[in-house]
Amino acid sequence: MDDGLIGGSGTLVSRVANDIRQRIAARTLAPGARLPSIRSFAKTMAASKSTIVEAYDRLVAEGVIQSRRGSGFYVAGRMPPLALAEIEPRPDRAIDPLWVSRSSLDASDGMAKPGCGWLPSSWMPEAGIRRALRALARRQDNSLTDYASPLGLKPLRQLLARRMAEHGVEVMPDQIMLTESGTQAVDLLCRFLIEPGDAVMVDDPCYFNFHALLKAHRAKIIGVPYTRNGPDPELFGKILSQHRPRLYITNSALHNPTGAVLSSVVAHRLLKLAEQHDLTIIEDDIFADFEHQPAPRLAAFDGLDRVIHIGSFSKSLSASIRCGFVATRREWIDGLVDLRIATSFGSGRIGSEVVLSMLKDGTYRKHMDSLRTRLARSMGDTIARLKPLGIVPWIQPRGGMFLWCKLPDGVDAARIAQLGLEEGIVFAPGNVFSQAQAAHSYMRFNVAQCNNPHIFEVLGRLVADQAASASS
Amino acid sequence: MDDGLIGGSGTLVSRVANDIRQRIAARTLAPGARLPSIRSFAKTMAASKSTIVEAYDRLVAEGVIQSRRGSGFYVAGRMPPLALAEIEPRPDRAIDPLWVSRSSLDASDGMAKPGCGWLPSSWMPEAGIRRALRALARRQDNSLTDYASPLGLKPLRQLLARRMAEHGVEVMPDQIMLTESGTQAVDLLCRFLIEPGDAVMVDDPCYFNFHALLKAHRAKIIGVPYTRNGPDPELFGKILSQHRPRLYITNSALHNPTGAVLSSVVAHRLLKLAEQHDLTIIEDDIFADFEHQPAPRLAAFDGLDRVIHIGSFSKSLSASIRCGFVATRREWIDGLVDLRIATSFGSGRIGSEVVLSMLKDGTYRKHMDSLRTRLARSMGDTIARLKPLGIVPWIQPRGGMFLWCKLPDGVDAARIAQLGLEEGIVFAPGNVFSQAQAAHSYMRFNVAQCNNPHIFEVLGRLVADQAASASS
Repeated sequence: MDDGLIGGSGTLVSRVANDIRQRIAARTLAPGARLPSIRSFAKTMAASKSTIVEAYDRLVAEGVIQSRRGSGFYVAGRMPPLALAEIEPRPDRAIDPLWVSRSSLDASDGMAKPGCGWLPSSWMPEAGIRRALRALARRQDNSLTDYASPLGLKPLRQLLARRMAEHGVEVMPDQIMLTESGTQAVDLLCRFLIEPGDAVMVDDPCYFNFHALLKAHRAKIIGVPYTRNGPDPELFGKILSQHRPRLYITNSALHNPTGAVLSSVVAHRLLKLAEQHDLTIIEDDIFADFEHQPAPRLAAFDGLDRVIHIGSFSKSLSASIRCGFVATRREWIDGLVDLRIATSFGSGRIGSEVVLSMLKDGTYRKHMDSLRTRLARSMGDTIARLKPLGIVPWIQPRGGMFLWCKLPDGVDAARIAQLGLEEGIVFAPGNVFSQAQAAHSYMRFNVAQCNNPHIFEVLGRLVADQAASASS
Repeated sequence: MDDGLIGGSGTLVSRVANDIRQRIAARTLAPGARLPSIRSFAKTMAASKSTIVEAYDRLVAEGVIQSRRGSGFYVAGRMPPLALAEIEPRPDRAIDPLWVSRSSLDASDGMAKPGCGWLPSSWMPEAGIRRALRALARRQDNSLTDYASPLGLKPLRQLLARRMAEHGVEVMPDQIMLTESGTQAVDLLCRFLIEPGDAVMVDDPCYFNFHALLKAHRAKIIGVPYTRNGPDPELFGKILSQHRPRLYITNSALHNPTGAVLSSVVAHRLLKLAEQHDLTIIEDDIFADFEHQPAPRLAAFDGLDRVIHIGSFSKSLSASIRCGFVATRREWIDGLVDLRIATSFGSGRIGSEVVLSMLKDGTYRKHMDSLRTRLARSMGDTIARLKPLGIVPWIQPRGGMFLWCKLPDGVDAARIAQLGLEEGIVFAPGNVFSQAQAAHSYMRFNVAQCNNPHIFEVLGRLVADQAASASS
């Protein structure tokens, strides 16, 4: 019996079972897929049929595959069809688009998070939030108990429309729908505008969660290389011709992760190309209020015709108070509201009431003024601390919290991130931002989270170790 | 052949295609517009049908137009592919699954809403919510500014686990993920468990938003007739064999819209069938705390193996404070958290902190005690008011706010709902709950929203008018 030749059927059974497990993990065998018949698989594996039967039975017992009477074996349906991340730890786990989010959200208070995408809690206007909550607790209407209207709190939408007008974006309050977050806004737009299999263009690098989100929508993600002035217009045009994406998602001002700003010249070229190819653009502008000087907005040039504008207060005011918004063509609002009700029902009013009161009483403006100054100082400090380690900013951003840096030659950011996590530091390695995986020697730093010298001690040591072993 | 006359069919195909491209560019044919039928366009262009077919096919290949099976060709592009509701007003608009939600959420304060799915604001524990908010405003940690941990506030999950244990559902706190709402929980589970085109079973009738939600997921919706003891087990089994649904979504206790309760006998049969066919069940239990006596729970019998348990506080505590949860197998939690981060990023802490403090200080328990009594009284009052109108409850529910009623013969609920809306009353006509559209003579009443005699005056008149014209 051939099984005997390679060490007993027990061993071979394990091998066959492992082989199948690996194919499932690698999605060569997708959830719900039919496994090869006993007979044909026995041939492929040069094993006896009884070995295959035993391996299959073992996997059935484990719940990995299922037997359906009279029809064969199938990869278990219960296996989530949509795993955004591999479940098992892998050596390259660091490049998973959710790695930074999960590590940052999971991090205990004692951990340093230079890779995290938001401000430290202590930088937030706590006193103002307390005041807004106390005022809300005194309110004598239905704010505390009832659903918001489908579009969300009207006075807040009116105020947002005025604020957008200051940035040159003409919009009526009924073209604005409030959401729980900027992410939820992008998610609803994807539900509304794309179908599974549609191509969607993002910047390379871009905010890693766009990758995760688009994967959840089963979109085909196409990255366009990002330059210091916005996406490369040449390549942008080529991708439009070749892949016909329905959608392009970007940050125009204070681009995440690079901190770069779209130039007017590039903006005009993009909009022209978008029109030629009937492309819709989502301009995710959640860092708008971090700018010292307003950069060009696609939505301003376009007048919300094919550009959809998104914002939120999670990064500037409080991550705990959920309030984002989307501004778009009036005729799309109804469909978005329907989708929103279908998928999360009504929205609460607490978040929008708190934001409204802080916008109205000046708390928000004062907070952002001092925040910009504080960030500019931290930006300088962080650049100075990174310099002796041989870590060089790609550009010096005009504002915001992000600094996109090149590591010394031969140093792999993902490896640093993994070793960093073992020492209690969450870094953001370049490839989590890169669809083409072309940013392995880059890292994003959040300057607001870099006030701890320990970060640079550890980073210096890890970088030096890697550089040394690379050159040896 | 006429094609020959104007220069060969190849040329004519190009001309026809060009003509359509120009019409699209000039917006004479708007995105989403239906193209002329092959036959009529052939006539217009003085070409053969095969020429038109070839031109259309070419444009489909280019992505300029789209073919929809059985329905013709449409201009591709900016037109949202996923409209949950018809955009144009239609005479049968009342049977749209979002009609009741939109009408209720849009309703002005002066309107009566016997069809609405939640309690009046004045029934909610406002004083308790104020107290909880004031306490929160005094907190000296990161509750007001930071994201919650990925699973959500731990003390609340611990408390929820204890509460579920009282209902016989054994669950560890790390098997629970907090969400913004019950709807968001179901939505995340659909993202996790089903793919476009998968069959999903719901009760007929069921909560109308399940239809809207599943439509957003492009699922094939199969309704199983609902009896006074739960879904019909015979038909349940038949649907499993025939359609192989991956998922069944139901309310076990105080079923929406009927107020019926699952019997233990039916529960066991369902679970046995579910196991045979590897069906996953979502038990949406958001009305759990409205029960006077706990009914059987699928999750309790099953031990969260193939049953997923969902709850929320939107109906019992406040619609403004968003806090729901999902309890499931531990190995699914990670994937759900990933999807949650990808699609709405972190969650806020305000909602869960408020709920936790009201659960802990006894406010919630006292509120629910008096709420149940108040609802029981309103239930009796509503039944008494409906009786003289010839409107008969299908069953007298053991609790909750919903009363599912049969209208007199010949009276169409959708028509009543439309006429009612014109008079400022939001009714919930039966067919919004029915996948098979088999409930045109039924209506759901929310007894908590029925304290206004005007509702019954208008309803009596509308019903009498219709009954009269039906019998004449």
